[in-house]
Amino acid sequence: TFAPPPAVNDPMWGYFTAIAGQDGEIDAEELQRCLTQSGFSGSYTPFSLDTCRIMIAMLDRDMTGTMGFNEFKELFVALNGWKQNFMMFDRDRSGTVEPHEMAQAVASMGYRISPQALNAIVKRYSKGGRIFFDDYVACCVKLRTLTETFRKRDVMQQGTVNFQYDDFILCTMAV
Amino acid sequence: TFAPPPAVNDPMWGYFTAIAGQDGEIDAEELQRCLTQSGFSGSYTPFSLDTCRIMIAMLDRDMTGTMGFNEFKELFVALNGWKQNFMMFDRDRSGTVEPHEMAQAVASMGYRISPQALNAIVKRYSKGGRIFFDDYVACCVKLRTLTETFRKRDVMQQGTVNFQYDDFILCTMAV
Ligand SMILES: [Ca+2]
Ligand SMILES: [Ca+2]
Ligand SMILES: [Ca+2]
Repeated sequence: TFAPPPAVNDPMWGYFTAIAGQDGEIDAEELQRCLTQSGFSGSYTPFSLDTCRIMIAMLDRDMTGTMGFNEFKELFVALNGWKQNFMMFDRDRSGTVEPHEMAQAVASMGYRISPQALNAIVKRYSKGGRIFFDDYVACCVKLRTLTETFRKRDVMQQGTVNFQYDDFILCTMAV
Repeated sequence: TFAPPPAVNDPMWGYFTAIAGQDGEIDAEELQRCLTQSGFSGSYTPFSLDTCRIMIAMLDRDMTGTMGFNEFKELFVALNGWKQNFMMFDRDRSGTVEPHEMAQAVASMGYRISPQALNAIVKRYSKGGRIFFDDYVACCVKLRTLTETFRKRDVMQQGTVNFQYDDFILCTMAV
């Protein structure tokens, strides 16, 4: 009996192909359009192109700068998690998370980070002392990517990693 | 005889204090306003808040998230250099630098980077296959900061550095 490839049965497949166009891959600009049109951010600020670029870099193992279908689905799983997380910490529905809430959010995602590093993160991703949704997601994308990069190299789980200059630049410039 | 502090004689001092306001320090939003109003970008795209944040992080040794007068002057020296550099490589005055020109630009700044890392950089900072001024500067800021971070830790100049997880996150999340 005939069995279609799994993607055809997947409700997101039609959506994906419509966005991806002829090349069957989604780049940062297509992703930004898709996230804006789908209303993913709701009443929150829409995603900047910069944030969309690092979303792609997070999952772009073959470094083409684009996303295939599986990566696209993986991204939505991550995005939904961060959105729920953000809404949970934005208790007063102001559309922003405050610095002290950011510490809780980061801890709840399982990252163990010193107050000094957390302070640097808050400074980098806040605006007028508050963290907006787009910046929150950018921060989550980056934290996840850098932590994965680190863990992949920390084979013995010593909490310490050796970087060659070029590898360091490669890993850190893309996010 | 009375000698005023050096800053008072500096033509940029009045400019700095006008932007910095009461606290005598410039934050990312003040910097963005200042760079926009001064017309620094000329006909190029103005700097995004994101780019202004990493400009501050580049020079923010005490990690306050703000810039003092000396840091402000240091930033202008760097910015002027990058602007000249960009204009030199944007030969057709399209307002963008093309990927192959980016390779030359990065090399001319003295960075030795593999084709793979360069490819990742181009993917990250280009839009429709071209690199705009704002992204070019963001790329330069990041490359300079990360290279300095690396060199500072590579005391023996072996081209390899050991990072603890928290230090790695601290250095890479802020830019
Ligand atoms: Ca809030
Ligand atoms: Ca400072
Ligand atoms: Ca050009």
